[in-house]
Amino acid sequence: MVLYVIGLGLGDETDITVRGLRAVQSCDKVYLENYTSILGIDHKTLSEFYGREVILADRDCVETGAEVIYANAKEQNIAFLVVGDPFCATTHSDLILRAQEIGAKVEVIHNASVMGAAGACGLQLYSYGQTVSIPFFNDKWRPDSFYDKIAFNRKGGLHTLCLLDIKVKEPDFEAMARGRTVFLPPRFMSVNQAVEQLLEVEDKRQEGVYSRDTLCVGMARLGQRDQKIVAGTLAELLSVDFGAPLHSLVIAGDVHFLEEEMLAQFSVKLLQATTTADETA
Amino acid sequence: MVLYVIGLGLGDETDITVRGLRAVQSCDKVYLENYTSILGIDHKTLSEFYGREVILADRDCVETGAEVIYANAKEQNIAFLVVGDPFCATTHSDLILRAQEIGAKVEVIHNASVMGAAGACGLQLYSYGQTVSIPFFNDKWRPDSFYDKIAFNRKGGLHTLCLLDIKVKEPDFEAMARGRTVFLPPRFMSVNQAVEQLLEVEDKRQEGVYSRDTLCVGMARLGQRDQKIVAGTLAELLSVDFGAPLHSLVIAGDVHFLEEEMLAQFSVKLLQATTTADETA
Repeated sequence: MVLYVIGLGLGDETDITVRGLRAVQSCDKVYLENYTSILGIDHKTLSEFYGREVILADRDCVETGAEVIYANAKEQNIAFLVVGDPFCATTHSDLILRAQEIGAKVEVIHNASVMGAAGACGLQLYSYGQTVSIPFFNDKWRPDSFYDKIAFNRKGGLHTLCLLDIKVKEPDFEAMARGRTVFLPPRFMSVNQAVEQLLEVEDKRQEGVYSRDTLCVGMARLGQRDQKIVAGTLAELLSVDFGAPLHSLVIAGDVHFLEEEMLAQFSVKLLQATTTADETA
Repeated sequence: MVLYVIGLGLGDETDITVRGLRAVQSCDKVYLENYTSILGIDHKTLSEFYGREVILADRDCVETGAEVIYANAKEQNIAFLVVGDPFCATTHSDLILRAQEIGAKVEVIHNASVMGAAGACGLQLYSYGQTVSIPFFNDKWRPDSFYDKIAFNRKGGLHTLCLLDIKVKEPDFEAMARGRTVFLPPRFMSVNQAVEQLLEVEDKRQEGVYSRDTLCVGMARLGQRDQKIVAGTLAELLSVDFGAPLHSLVIAGDVHFLEEEMLAQFSVKLLQATTTADETA
């Protein structure tokens, strides 16, 4: 039988492919990866849409106890559902390798990922350098290796896609110290927070990799019906309300005139014009 | 009404998303972009699957007469179908901008693209630099700007995805000189040809950007059921038969041990072992 690793794309339950849907409906067990990303929908909606129970697979399950997912793939069809495309996170390569080791057949069904859909912001995918991750800073941990990667990209005139941190099912260590297993509410980094952290690192490192005037594009709920894309300088994006998660950010490199034309439709200036008109009305 | 720009993904007719399929079936006219890429299926199969006539839009139509596509989007729902994701080629940004200019509403429905699915080869998407295109060389035109881009990526330890040239509906100038409009048969660059051209450029430029011993991954029909992925040195990939199009190639940068483990399953050595066993049998 088969372990299907199926991308769900970026939007709602209908963003699964027809091939993916048919695979899910041929399965005895359906798992949904529930930690590296989220869809704009809950797993009950997915269950109803598929006509199949959907089991949430959290970080513990995928990283330490993944056997429960693939162990039966020799006798049954098993689906493992992943937001975006299955190959945008390491963990899934891992799952696939381990399933193959025990002799299970694995079939991957691709879908849209933020890395492909980022082209929607108007900057050509051909002109992107390496993608970086911006982690949540805390009191003790403020890693800035993304700064060097952005520096490298910008030296080549390339755009940088910044994926923003997500904390899902993080343990509440205070409660755990008191002997209870409690998880903190999920957190998703906003474009505003990412911009703050980026500016903090530039202020600290002072290598002039980017500045408050660097052109960027903030994106929220990319690929969903209510996606929001706003282009402006880092300083301008600091105060734009992008609404619900997920957010991501592109730091522009050299901008071609065709890209400028595409970006113009998302300019923060248009947003400000509308807001002013609303206030006047 | 709406102009839907819908990605078809990488495989067959069932790789459209459920949302995309519903949009197509709400449309009065359905166009299929027929020049930057091809699916492993013909447009008749698509027509039957959708229950809608599918009109082929070739290069002339999209680049010079695109009004026929979007002009009626104010009165009718129109679908424009694109292989992969709608934002992997400039022309579609163009179509979208022009449709918006005449006041049509545009909705983009994303799907898998080679840029996202390339992760299937085992090299982490986070470690890719800019994507390059390898054009068909001819007697007069042997452009090598991809060489500098690969050099830049490798300096940063990054992998390079090489998209290989496609010639669809190219005019036959000899026949045209005789007054007939004739098109040459479509051509798709193979991994072997790409490797030949890459080695030719290295031999000419001699900057040591890569060599016959550089680790690469050739991919054919990525995301389709009969995809073929083979990892080996450039010299080794020269003689591997990848079969039907589309092909693409990744030139590895620095390889992490987890990536090595993923690549091992695609090693050309395994292929050679199988072939030798066949020959002995």
